[in-house]
Amino acid sequence: MKQREFCIVGLGLLGGSYAMALSRAGGRVTAVDVRREALEYAKEQGWIQAGALPEDAPALLHDAQVIVLGLYPQDIMPWIMQYQQHFRPGVLLTDVCGVKRAVVSRVQEILRPDAELIACHPMAGKEVSGVEYADCAIFRPANFLITPTEKNTPEAIQFAHELGKTLGFARITELSCEKHDEMIGYVSQLTHAIAVALMNANDDPELPLTTGDSFRDLTRIAKINDKLWSELFLENSDLLIQEIDRFSQELQKIRTALQQEDKETLCTMFRASTERRRLFDRTEALKTQKS
Amino acid sequence: MKQREFCIVGLGLLGGSYAMALSRAGGRVTAVDVRREALEYAKEQGWIQAGALPEDAPALLHDAQVIVLGLYPQDIMPWIMQYQQHFRPGVLLTDVCGVKRAVVSRVQEILRPDAELIACHPMAGKEVSGVEYADCAIFRPANFLITPTEKNTPEAIQFAHELGKTLGFARITELSCEKHDEMIGYVSQLTHAIAVALMNANDDPELPLTTGDSFRDLTRIAKINDKLWSELFLENSDLLIQEIDRFSQELQKIRTALQQEDKETLCTMFRASTERRRLFDRTEALKTQKS
Repeated sequence: MKQREFCIVGLGLLGGSYAMALSRAGGRVTAVDVRREALEYAKEQGWIQAGALPEDAPALLHDAQVIVLGLYPQDIMPWIMQYQQHFRPGVLLTDVCGVKRAVVSRVQEILRPDAELIACHPMAGKEVSGVEYADCAIFRPANFLITPTEKNTPEAIQFAHELGKTLGFARITELSCEKHDEMIGYVSQLTHAIAVALMNANDDPELPLTTGDSFRDLTRIAKINDKLWSELFLENSDLLIQEIDRFSQELQKIRTALQQEDKETLCTMFRASTERRRLFDRTEALKTQKS
Repeated sequence: MKQREFCIVGLGLLGGSYAMALSRAGGRVTAVDVRREALEYAKEQGWIQAGALPEDAPALLHDAQVIVLGLYPQDIMPWIMQYQQHFRPGVLLTDVCGVKRAVVSRVQEILRPDAELIACHPMAGKEVSGVEYADCAIFRPANFLITPTEKNTPEAIQFAHELGKTLGFARITELSCEKHDEMIGYVSQLTHAIAVALMNANDDPELPLTTGDSFRDLTRIAKINDKLWSELFLENSDLLIQEIDRFSQELQKIRTALQQEDKETLCTMFRASTERRRLFDRTEALKTQKS
């Protein structure tokens, strides 16, 4: 990882945290961003050795052995089409997108044959955005997902594993793009949809005064980057709708039990959720042990 | 508060935490519980000076100036009917119930005229139960709700405020039983219903391996005491059903926007939830400032 030359395209919260971790690990890191201040900030922090606005990107791209696409999902295809003529032969690309079916195969189809995209999803973030909030400490408790396709070489997959380790992730998992989107539809997108709906369901002005911790926990992620998350939701809408429907069915079971004063059904559901949630604790314990 | 003699009836997680805080504040505390081990544990900790099984309760009740009912909602009425003949004249009662309409007025109707119930809801807890997990530190970041009725004296309401302070709560709020149940239906019961439904909506065995923090946050409270929470839900079912319906409508709005690829509606909803959630932060900041 040390000898590699990286170019981060899109120096936001995640791109910046990559730059921080990779430069600390001894990599040579440059960056391209539309915000001059983002580039200057990262230079001041010592995270990048050079930065360029998009019009000056070609020179940096030409030197890069690895390009990290820190872009929003819908910006990736146009960017590739515009800039791939400037790639160094044999370049390896990786991304940070939270949806994979909509991005990976499309990019792989149009990518120059001497370039390779190995798709990754660093499952880390904050409720704020911008390189000024970047901090590779966010990777430490988190999962790094790698979604190889049949177009990927074993070397690129191996590289992605090393990347996840260098960035400091607690756990690295390989899965298909389809499986990724299904899982993300449930554990990430559905939870965000629920938090938003919960937050918007009641606007009583006295509520903030009388609210307990469980409500704060459930709504922390209701602070949401609207541009990014509307893209993520729409690019995965079939699976997210499926998860919303499954969840709604379970919630309606509770509603029906309430209407019918059916204590036994409520107790059965509560015992099932308690038992199921314990599995997630055990895994957490395992993770802590390993790290 | 120091000179008072308390008897805690039901020495569980909350009753035990009351005993711990009140004894530390210099009160004389006794307790009644069906579990001999619970009484012994609290005595060893120095939280109570005497304990009794229900059959030996009358002597302790007779000495108590304040009785703390640490019982489940449905156990309160039968207990009052059985034991109020043993109360000391002028005794003050308080409870810890998470629902109020179903408990407070009913108890106040049958209570001896020389006794008074001032209802309180300490909004604190853990995902475990039993005096062995009691710890009055759980009160420190939490809210103490007082729900007086027209039957309450100013002195009893004043006592409840002092009690909340002595227990160490960050914030003390007075509200009606109706308003309490409405608010709890939303911020506490709906959130628990959502967590249970979310947890039960998908049983993919690989999920614990790939799950992020937001999912863990939303499902922490899916570990739930089935006997207690089925009672709380059923005693407040009208308002909880209303909140489930409001929430479901919001979630369906997201679903419709996904189906119609309506990015603007998604963005509007996300901005609203982000803005609304900030109010809860400001309150939290205020709370920290005050404590």
